[in-house]
Amino acid sequence: MKIDINCDMGESYGIWKMGRDEEVMPHITSANIACGFHAGDPHVMRKTVCMARDHGVAVGAHTGYPDRLGFGRRFIETSRQELKDYLTYQIGALEAFLKQEGMGLQHVKPHGALYTVAVNDADLSQGIVESIQEYNPDLLLYAMPGSLTYQAAEKGGLRVVAEGFVDLEYLPNGSLALERAKKAWEPEEVAQRFLRLVKDGKMSTTTGETINIAVDSVCVHGDSPNAPEILAAVNDAMKREGIERVAITTLV
Amino acid sequence: MKIDINCDMGESYGIWKMGRDEEVMPHITSANIACGFHAGDPHVMRKTVCMARDHGVAVGAHTGYPDRLGFGRRFIETSRQELKDYLTYQIGALEAFLKQEGMGLQHVKPHGALYTVAVNDADLSQGIVESIQEYNPDLLLYAMPGSLTYQAAEKGGLRVVAEGFVDLEYLPNGSLALERAKKAWEPEEVAQRFLRLVKDGKMSTTTGETINIAVDSVCVHGDSPNAPEILAAVNDAMKREGIERVAITTLV
Amino acid sequence: MKIDINCDMGESYGIWKMGRDEEVMPHITSANIACGFHAGDPHVMRKTVCMARDHGVAVGAHTGYPDRLGFGRRFIETSRQELKDYLTYQIGALEAFLKQEGMGLQHVKPHGALYTVAVNDADLSQGIVESIQEYNPDLLLYAMPGSLTYQAAEKGGLRVVAEGFVDLEYLPNGSLALERAKKAWEPEEVAQRFLRLVKDGKMSTTTGETINIAVDSVCVHGDSPNAPEILAAVNDAMKREGIERVAITTLV
Amino acid sequence: MKIDINCDMGESYGIWKMGRDEEVMPHITSANIACGFHAGDPHVMRKTVCMARDHGVAVGAHTGYPDRLGFGRRFIETSRQELKDYLTYQIGALEAFLKQEGMGLQHVKPHGALYTVAVNDADLSQGIVESIQEYNPDLLLYAMPGSLTYQAAEKGGLRVVAEGFVDLEYLPNGSLALERAKKAWEPEEVAQRFLRLVKDGKMSTTTGETINIAVDSVCVHGDSPNAPEILAAVNDAMKREGIERVAITTLV
Repeated sequence: MKIDINCDMGESYGIWKMGRDEEVMPHITSANIACGFHAGDPHVMRKTVCMARDHGVAVGAHTGYPDRLGFGRRFIETSRQELKDYLTYQIGALEAFLKQEGMGLQHVKPHGALYTVAVNDADLSQGIVESIQEYNPDLLLYAMPGSLTYQAAEKGGLRVVAEGFVDLEYLPNGSLALERAKKAWEPEEVAQRFLRLVKDGKMSTTTGETINIAVDSVCVHGDSPNAPEILAAVNDAMKREGIERVAITTLV
Repeated sequence: MKIDINCDMGESYGIWKMGRDEEVMPHITSANIACGFHAGDPHVMRKTVCMARDHGVAVGAHTGYPDRLGFGRRFIETSRQELKDYLTYQIGALEAFLKQEGMGLQHVKPHGALYTVAVNDADLSQGIVESIQEYNPDLLLYAMPGSLTYQAAEKGGLRVVAEGFVDLEYLPNGSLALERAKKAWEPEEVAQRFLRLVKDGKMSTTTGETINIAVDSVCVHGDSPNAPEILAAVNDAMKREGIERVAITTLV
Repeated sequence: MKIDINCDMGESYGIWKMGRDEEVMPHITSANIACGFHAGDPHVMRKTVCMARDHGVAVGAHTGYPDRLGFGRRFIETSRQELKDYLTYQIGALEAFLKQEGMGLQHVKPHGALYTVAVNDADLSQGIVESIQEYNPDLLLYAMPGSLTYQAAEKGGLRVVAEGFVDLEYLPNGSLALERAKKAWEPEEVAQRFLRLVKDGKMSTTTGETINIAVDSVCVHGDSPNAPEILAAVNDAMKREGIERVAITTLV
Repeated sequence: MKIDINCDMGESYGIWKMGRDEEVMPHITSANIACGFHAGDPHVMRKTVCMARDHGVAVGAHTGYPDRLGFGRRFIETSRQELKDYLTYQIGALEAFLKQEGMGLQHVKPHGALYTVAVNDADLSQGIVESIQEYNPDLLLYAMPGSLTYQAAEKGGLRVVAEGFVDLEYLPNGSLALERAKKAWEPEEVAQRFLRLVKDGKMSTTTGETINIAVDSVCVHGDSPNAPEILAAVNDAMKREGIERVAITTLV
């Protein structure tokens, strides 16, 4: 049994720290690095790219709305072309650091409200897919299985990574309950949700129902106050159950 | 007699317009496109890149300080590494649009206070040169002949474009008198300065002295209120004198 | 017959100019000055406040979303408390300039998407009303007659100014069709819409229907490319028909 | 023996936390609240104002350069008028929250590079003083004794608070060594520096020399990683030595 672990990284800004990236990096295989719109800045991006490289972690562009004050977690109306221009800008900015540090870009993952709204929005999803197609169709796209984003990506011929979330609540319809600022979760509870998701493809919703989700990758949030503790618990559970952490490119 | 004409383009922001780019593009060979720090935004960058492509104009990254309110025309203290990170970010963001529109990046030109301060600052100049070396050493760098930036670029093995300014005042020491907002110049006066610069390698300073400057390219400012009229006058002068407008890559 | 003419002013930013405020000021009685969130900056606010004072024009806070890139013309999700904090900040910032220049604040007018979304949003409207109540209940609030904002203000005991728009399209349901960037209108057409609105309380919608609107003030947009020409035409029409331009405080 | 303790508060931004304001408030008499330029945002300002009110702490405007990325700790060239406009804007924005929460503004304290550069810059100092005079000449200004800012304020008839720093290095010339991000200090060392400063008016410099400084207030930085521990140590020292913490208005 094999799984990719992805985590949002590089969400500090200026002298404001967010997340404990140094402690998280050893436990993940894919880092979604913020590109300066909802979080991150050029200096933070450089440091985070170097940190990922040093830990052998593959890098993706965590693209968000231009809304630092709201951390990209509130919806902003855009035209499809505007959205595409925002994505192109952010992807290019990140890839420049990767190029200078001898790495390549592995994937794109929309952040926050862009991610959760696109789940049910065909137009936003199409904008996301087109941005990648027009920039580099070999890039992977992380998306929720069953989402319109996932469908648009498959239809557009992109390689899509089906991902699940173990430290966010699922609503009964399968969508996510986005929080502006992440609360801490009990590490052992997250580990249990992780095992159930990876082994059985099952997830509990806020109303106690069970939904089925088949995933290639599991996301753990880097801005959780206790992300390293959560990852340690997940890690222990993986070892116990013989689940291997692998590069996503070996899975999709 | 051959010369490259470069002009700052894409300096609009959101719904605020700056410059008459459509009218300027037919008259230039190199466009320095703002990258979203001192001016420009993703949507403006896309449109300006497409406009340059449609006019066969080569594109450079016009990189500036992260200071939209001051239009990048006031000095901001940075470490060398910070500066390099700012440049990398902006160059990458612009190149992403070029890539999507089937173009490549030709050059880098620091903007405003970054440009004028680096003239006499070895550390800033070195940061600019290293950014380019580490990103793509084949990129051209536009710089003032005689400046520390020019010297650092030559020493670092970059191809440097010696450029002169015909719509900015030179101080007696050869440096530029930067204005926050560009004033209009008399087109015919600029045309005369242009001819004297290109044919004789001479330029008058604010105190009436004459300095010698040998240039490969002449910069005309796109945010002048009458940039198209200035370029028309320069154009007429070029035709009269048999000076040809050519791609900078044929000259350096 | 008496009417207040209000206009959005101070929408420049840094060296980017927006609107022809000097030409507009002589024709209006109330200036809605941008407060640095969707447009304007401290320097522009100072200059615009002084300009209003010199023309005897009363000043209101034109409060918007923190979205310069979108000019405050796209909706951003906020909690009611967040919205109130945004308004308090902007109102206070503007009143500081007024205080230094010997003036007082007359009114508040929400800008762009905040204005148009609040029309049908009780919660946003309540947030707007509470901000004013808690800051200074003597301030006037400009709102669309019939809107939830208008109703909340009346219920909250505020003095409300019923305003109409002559250079924006009304949809059949009485709401406004917001444009990201204002297009020019034919001055004479606007003057006719103005007369019909002020004299008969009637306005045409995009589908050709007529709706009834009783207004105390008419808004003309300052970011129209031809705002001064529009105001001149409105002015001529007012003189022909004997309609007097008066301070809104004499009307509500 | 009596002293005012002032501390920078409200330096969080969006979901990024800075400082442990809740733990610091019980130990201080004056809070310098960030006004949204170098740190803080409307929501943070509201919460910090309420927190100060609940602890009986007086509030001042901590005004900085418009440079969130550099936390206001790097110099930005401005004209005197620009600087005045920045200060007016920030002071007014903060006072609006104070007004809504039933408080008044006690003082102004320039932040970061604005503070340290003005120490030796007559023009900046004059701009700071004029802003206050024109807004409300009853406001206190916090400044370094001996600085040009202090002198300009005295000459301008303002009440000036002479303040000293116990968690920043003094250079031999009496100026401060500004750090971009505050490092932790040994609490007991700070307490000793505090006692020496308050009781004897003496401070050690980076080269080991002793300089004389008479202060009315002592600043402890709120963005130190261990500000509460530092304040606890200072507090203990004060009790041991019978030094009383009092409102600054009783001292100047």
